[in-house]
Amino acid sequence: MSLRETITNIESKNGRRFDIVIQILIVLSLLAFSIETLPNLSEQTKEYLYYFEVFCVTIFTIEYLLRFIFAKKKLGYVFSFYGIIDLLAILPFYLSFGIDLRSVRIFRILRVFRILKLARYNSAIDRFKKAAFSAREEIVLFAIITGILLYLAAFGIYIFENEAQPEKFASVFHSLWWAVSTLTTVGYGDVYPVTMGGKIFTFFILIIGLGIVTVPAGIVASALSNSVKKKSD
Amino acid sequence: MSLRETITNIESKNGRRFDIVIQILIVLSLLAFSIETLPNLSEQTKEYLYYFEVFCVTIFTIEYLLRFIFAKKKLGYVFSFYGIIDLLAILPFYLSFGIDLRSVRIFRILRVFRILKLARYNSAIDRFKKAAFSAREEIVLFAIITGILLYLAAFGIYIFENEAQPEKFASVFHSLWWAVSTLTTVGYGDVYPVTMGGKIFTFFILIIGLGIVTVPAGIVASALSNSVKKKSD
Amino acid sequence: MSLRETITNIESKNGRRFDIVIQILIVLSLLAFSIETLPNLSEQTKEYLYYFEVFCVTIFTIEYLLRFIFAKKKLGYVFSFYGIIDLLAILPFYLSFGIDLRSVRIFRILRVFRILKLARYNSAIDRFKKAAFSAREEIVLFAIITGILLYLAAFGIYIFENEAQPEKFASVFHSLWWAVSTLTTVGYGDVYPVTMGGKIFTFFILIIGLGIVTVPAGIVASALSNSVKKKSD
Amino acid sequence: MSLRETITNIESKNGRRFDIVIQILIVLSLLAFSIETLPNLSEQTKEYLYYFEVFCVTIFTIEYLLRFIFAKKKLGYVFSFYGIIDLLAILPFYLSFGIDLRSVRIFRILRVFRILKLARYNSAIDRFKKAAFSAREEIVLFAIITGILLYLAAFGIYIFENEAQPEKFASVFHSLWWAVSTLTTVGYGDVYPVTMGGKIFTFFILIIGLGIVTVPAGIVASALSNSVKKKSD
Repeated sequence: MSLRETITNIESKNGRRFDIVIQILIVLSLLAFSIETLPNLSEQTKEYLYYFEVFCVTIFTIEYLLRFIFAKKKLGYVFSFYGIIDLLAILPFYLSFGIDLRSVRIFRILRVFRILKLARYNSAIDRFKKAAFSAREEIVLFAIITGILLYLAAFGIYIFENEAQPEKFASVFHSLWWAVSTLTTVGYGDVYPVTMGGKIFTFFILIIGLGIVTVPAGIVASALSNSVKKKSD
Repeated sequence: MSLRETITNIESKNGRRFDIVIQILIVLSLLAFSIETLPNLSEQTKEYLYYFEVFCVTIFTIEYLLRFIFAKKKLGYVFSFYGIIDLLAILPFYLSFGIDLRSVRIFRILRVFRILKLARYNSAIDRFKKAAFSAREEIVLFAIITGILLYLAAFGIYIFENEAQPEKFASVFHSLWWAVSTLTTVGYGDVYPVTMGGKIFTFFILIIGLGIVTVPAGIVASALSNSVKKKSD
Repeated sequence: MSLRETITNIESKNGRRFDIVIQILIVLSLLAFSIETLPNLSEQTKEYLYYFEVFCVTIFTIEYLLRFIFAKKKLGYVFSFYGIIDLLAILPFYLSFGIDLRSVRIFRILRVFRILKLARYNSAIDRFKKAAFSAREEIVLFAIITGILLYLAAFGIYIFENEAQPEKFASVFHSLWWAVSTLTTVGYGDVYPVTMGGKIFTFFILIIGLGIVTVPAGIVASALSNSVKKKSD
Repeated sequence: MSLRETITNIESKNGRRFDIVIQILIVLSLLAFSIETLPNLSEQTKEYLYYFEVFCVTIFTIEYLLRFIFAKKKLGYVFSFYGIIDLLAILPFYLSFGIDLRSVRIFRILRVFRILKLARYNSAIDRFKKAAFSAREEIVLFAIITGILLYLAAFGIYIFENEAQPEKFASVFHSLWWAVSTLTTVGYGDVYPVTMGGKIFTFFILIIGLGIVTVPAGIVASALSNSVKKKSD
């Protein structure tokens, strides 16, 4: 009975302890996974990392089986959001005969979201959902306008720059890369207009565009702040 | 009667279906148009794209004629916002004898805005209009200040950098390009100050400028969020 | 009496007309001034630009004298904000014997602010003043924190990068340039960390810094939006 | 009795004067410290800077001793926030036998925060604390989501770009640098995707990411503005 509670009831003392251990293990396994991508690793290190991976998968598999056994609705757990993620976190290890499925392990990061349960951020998530829901039409509207703007920007700069820089602005699709990196103000500097017309076009697109691209984040922030305020009133 | 309703009444079942088909066709024709700009297309592909364009224009022409026939005020439709766009979407095809009018086809993207009708975003658009209207004086005020700031920044950097980089900061107009890419924080890296004076000037312009350039978007976002809040209260 | 009203009363019909003409002349004289900075101008163009400058200064001088004559408190006008700017707009022309005072003409741009009078943006400016005033303590607080942050960022990156890039991060002052271009997210790409330590430092500075540097603009925008809302309630 | 008041009571006339002098000295000592980092300093300048440092440390030491003597709870002062900083500001000078502890002097900048006391920004700091506290769950939630997003972005770009740019995207850790400089929109231009897949991935990460990374600052700004509004209502 105690084990069942440890696994399923995050509110209990042992349940919290268990979850903290699992969370730490998830973060460590992601770290190990990232270290594996480093070039020039010694065979020794690779071996250690493999042992650690086996250890993690063992724990995660036991956890998965226990959650399955203790679940009231077994199929409900298997097909729940966390049920699928828990499975994806261990499956690649068992299936990796020949083909390289290691990348699927990245889904383990989604398990990190469980930390929010642990930290009791349910009310904050609820407020965020409500804020996003109440402003959903505005967000979709601005997403559509942003999409149209990006396409128009890409098309316009293609007209102006294609002749001068046929490599970098080879097509509307190539120009979309410029549109994205400009309107998000990242500006890597790998593509930029060189013609007078292209620069003037960029000027207007930026002046108009910034007032559009940054609005959705502003709406979310403002709506969230309102719901925080309502709470504290 | 059924055909008339399909064309003119977007609220009816058939009207919605018809509009969805047209919207998909618009997006596909824009995609085809973008593919045409790709370099090194085979003759085969070009032919297919041409056939698809003929198909699209045929459908759009039939749609235009039907909208014209079924419109209560025929001239009212022809000179309405969507009436002009609908015509611009097909006209270039018929007029392209000799001169290259293909670029005009880009106006088709404006037809995408019809999708907002379909998705019943009227209330969101109304709220946006109200928010923009109630803050119009602030937006215009900041637009003027931004304009003045850009000019002052361009002039200032010209004074500082013209001697050190006579190519890149050849005149106030050339310096405007720097002012735009800096104050919008894009920062491509094609032009930047190298003198001590220019760097200190950039420092102050950025500290002051960011607090001005980003304000209009913030006002719109905040005003929108207020109108969303009012709705949900 | 009519001339007096034209000059001093912007609310009258003739006063508005007069102000629009002066505004257009200011913008044209700034444009001429910018064209003068273009390299490789023909002697012909230079001559035309000089004639236009003489014309502008003549008009501005007459305007200044009339404003002085019609002013109720003559000294009050001379030492008022616009009085000083009006003088700075013409003085360089008369004083330019030998020394090059052309740059002082840039102050003419401040005359552009008069356009706000014309467009009756007084209430918007008032709301802006109130918003800025009510949030002045927050703005100063964040300005001080931003200053401290910039200095700490410059110092930190100097410690990490000085050895690896002794040219670009030669001193704390050189590093300040990096701090400004990074924390404002301009990121020209002329200076960036290359060491592991410098990159990790940049990571933390950016995560913390963005949440500080962008706050003042957000406060102004939000305060403005609140005052707009109060108006419309 | 007067000396005690000067040191401990910032509200008194002499207390304010004393604090202003100390503040100026702190800023000057930081400036001197920054000048020391300049390359190619003459021996003469180095000597002057050393003398000034001795002078500053003498004053700061006397100040520290006086604060200690006049403190009601002596240990309370020594282990208070400002007590530790005051000590760190002078200690490196006395300990620098052999090992180079000069860098520790940077902590002196934290003494600059005392300026806020002087300028009576207590209410603004209080409002900021309240705003940050009331929105603390949202800020932590978005900090966690930002962390997860950065990791996912780094991992994704590693998958796409590792083969094409094995140097720049050598591992997930190397890719994190790209993720940070992209999602904060700094975009130095030292690393950027070159493959089609990497660019499309960047597109989606940026569209989603900007709406997340910029939200915390927006929440703080909006919450602050609300508390400013409440004050003025």
